[in-house]
Amino acid sequence: MTTLSLSYVPSFRTTSFNDNDIRSMVWGYKIFGASNTMKMGRTTMYATPVTKGVNGKPAVVERTMIPTQKQFVDPFRQGIIILDGVGYRQTVVVRSYEVGPDKAVTLQSILNLLQETALNHVWMSGLLGDGFGATHGMMKNNLIWVVSRMQVQVDQYPIWGEILEIDTWVGASGKNGMRRDWEIRSHTTGIVFARATSTWVMMNQKTRRLSKMPDEVRAEISPWFINKQAIKEESVEKIDKLDDNAKYINSGLQPKRSDLDMNHHVNNVKYVGWMLEAIPEECLENYQLSNIILEYRRECGSSDVVESLCEPEQVGIIEDVNYMSRCPIGAGFLNCLVNQCIRFTHVLQVKEDSKCQEIVRGKTTWKKRNNHYPYCG
Amino acid sequence: MTTLSLSYVPSFRTTSFNDNDIRSMVWGYKIFGASNTMKMGRTTMYATPVTKGVNGKPAVVERTMIPTQKQFVDPFRQGIIILDGVGYRQTVVVRSYEVGPDKAVTLQSILNLLQETALNHVWMSGLLGDGFGATHGMMKNNLIWVVSRMQVQVDQYPIWGEILEIDTWVGASGKNGMRRDWEIRSHTTGIVFARATSTWVMMNQKTRRLSKMPDEVRAEISPWFINKQAIKEESVEKIDKLDDNAKYINSGLQPKRSDLDMNHHVNNVKYVGWMLEAIPEECLENYQLSNIILEYRRECGSSDVVESLCEPEQVGIIEDVNYMSRCPIGAGFLNCLVNQCIRFTHVLQVKEDSKCQEIVRGKTTWKKRNNHYPYCG
Repeated sequence: MTTLSLSYVPSFRTTSFNDNDIRSMVWGYKIFGASNTMKMGRTTMYATPVTKGVNGKPAVVERTMIPTQKQFVDPFRQGIIILDGVGYRQTVVVRSYEVGPDKAVTLQSILNLLQETALNHVWMSGLLGDGFGATHGMMKNNLIWVVSRMQVQVDQYPIWGEILEIDTWVGASGKNGMRRDWEIRSHTTGIVFARATSTWVMMNQKTRRLSKMPDEVRAEISPWFINKQAIKEESVEKIDKLDDNAKYINSGLQPKRSDLDMNHHVNNVKYVGWMLEAIPEECLENYQLSNIILEYRRECGSSDVVESLCEPEQVGIIEDVNYMSRCPIGAGFLNCLVNQCIRFTHVLQVKEDSKCQEIVRGKTTWKKRNNHYPYCG
Repeated sequence: MTTLSLSYVPSFRTTSFNDNDIRSMVWGYKIFGASNTMKMGRTTMYATPVTKGVNGKPAVVERTMIPTQKQFVDPFRQGIIILDGVGYRQTVVVRSYEVGPDKAVTLQSILNLLQETALNHVWMSGLLGDGFGATHGMMKNNLIWVVSRMQVQVDQYPIWGEILEIDTWVGASGKNGMRRDWEIRSHTTGIVFARATSTWVMMNQKTRRLSKMPDEVRAEISPWFINKQAIKEESVEKIDKLDDNAKYINSGLQPKRSDLDMNHHVNNVKYVGWMLEAIPEECLENYQLSNIILEYRRECGSSDVVESLCEPEQVGIIEDVNYMSRCPIGAGFLNCLVNQCIRFTHVLQVKEDSKCQEIVRGKTTWKKRNNHYPYCG
């Protein structure tokens, strides 16, 4: 299933080394025949040599060296092409600032890594224009990607210092959309930590309206499509609308400059932060998120003032959990009852002229922590 | 100056490869004779084999595989030992979520990377206990590191996708302290983007009081000390005390769960975020931070409510800058006048019984942006 293209592996050089050789070998790119100009086998990895730009400083394109042809290995990002040439795998180490006080990776860090590997996949494809994952054809048509749905299932949280393999690939979603999936595993044991799936559509950057996929763009990306799903498709669950009667409400949330991404939007990861902040502290201490579904409705502008609403699911009454006396929340499904999990419905909305505009709806499922340090569980 | 230890480079294997071999070679560890158990030359890289822990799941120590002996190469973190065996260099690619809307790395991301490389340096040393950079000797004595001063100079901001080399090393600071310095360069051109220096002391984790450096700990870390400074030592500038008459005040700042680090403290990076948020938006748009000095006074508890005060330096009046009409700020030094830079004094404080407890004082210097996209400048 996950095969590697071997055609770009030249034979080893076994002559003597200098310091630069050694440094190169550490990251392995020398063994793929790459020199400082990053030639790899028969392909030239990067579009432009590093020359001087304006004012004697290298220009942007020279500094980022976005490839114009498909690459099979990126030694710096530790990425390789997998799945018969259409998928991408990146090896990453969990960094000290990506974990919480319990040393487990935060959900926000997981979402960041999903975004990063998705962009690096496009980077490797040779299709990346100068944008947030937009292809050359998309840029020509003033189109950007917008996410319409996202689901992340976390079986176990990776911890600080752990080595991960993140696989990602894409597929068709309807006529005009794209599905992108991910799988996060332990590099050491192969155990799957998390799975994710998402659907994306194109938006005209000027009109801010959704767009059909132009033939030109379809021709670029459809050769990368495969029919493989990280999360088994169940009937897609509808997320209820919440109103001001929701149990928990955080108001007056305003994006800061540092919340804007390269697209000058409030980044999706910030949305999730706002959602989770509406959940009572006690719940976060005793439970750990195991599933999140997000349905995106509209953009959040940099001047919007956002409200985060959150409602625990009230289906039955759980009797045995002490915790419930302090934080009275029901559970949605028998499955949840048995596994001591709780569920919340969320919405982020903007109030305009006393009307509410929904930005994103969400649903989260939380499993009881075995103790305060989830990595011990 | 930056020599590499060559003693751990075995000869290449030139036999045929399977998929796992190829995958290994991508990150180069196979060529160092490493197998899945990470044997490297004559040293065994990790302390424990991956075996089953409690409940059939690997235990923490097995999952993180903290080395118990000095390592010279870490293929996963892309780190090597430099500076005659006592310094550390890591190669990193600027990730999509580490940059702002201008595609330049944020100061917070730089601070995160400094923390990360410092910890990875200790990781490589074989001295790391299970803590936030604490050595085995420190853990035995219930000691943790606390930072007392930090300075970061940014000449040019790295941009999204750029490949960086970050060097870090340590030295003595007085009798009981440690200095840690960093240099961040472009991997491609060698241009220095940023330099940083910091001083650290030890605190007893239980009493929360500063501690002398025990002989046991000095014996562990002093062999790593060198006398090399990333930032030329000038007379250390005193940072003035601010009071409630400061021009800009942000009140009611409260740490969130996600602001706590592995030490269960509000992370330093959060402090800097709070400082910068007190600066008017217009200034952030037109100026870019080129220097920050931080003096830490006391810890911020998770229940503290913090005030961020900020005062522009008022030494002279600048006549030629249009910007000044909207954001009337003076400049501290002739140097600043010539280069169109501005300076602020900062303080973060907690009010307790109408008394102010300072958490950290700061001083920032800002250079005029050439345009809204600093990477073009």
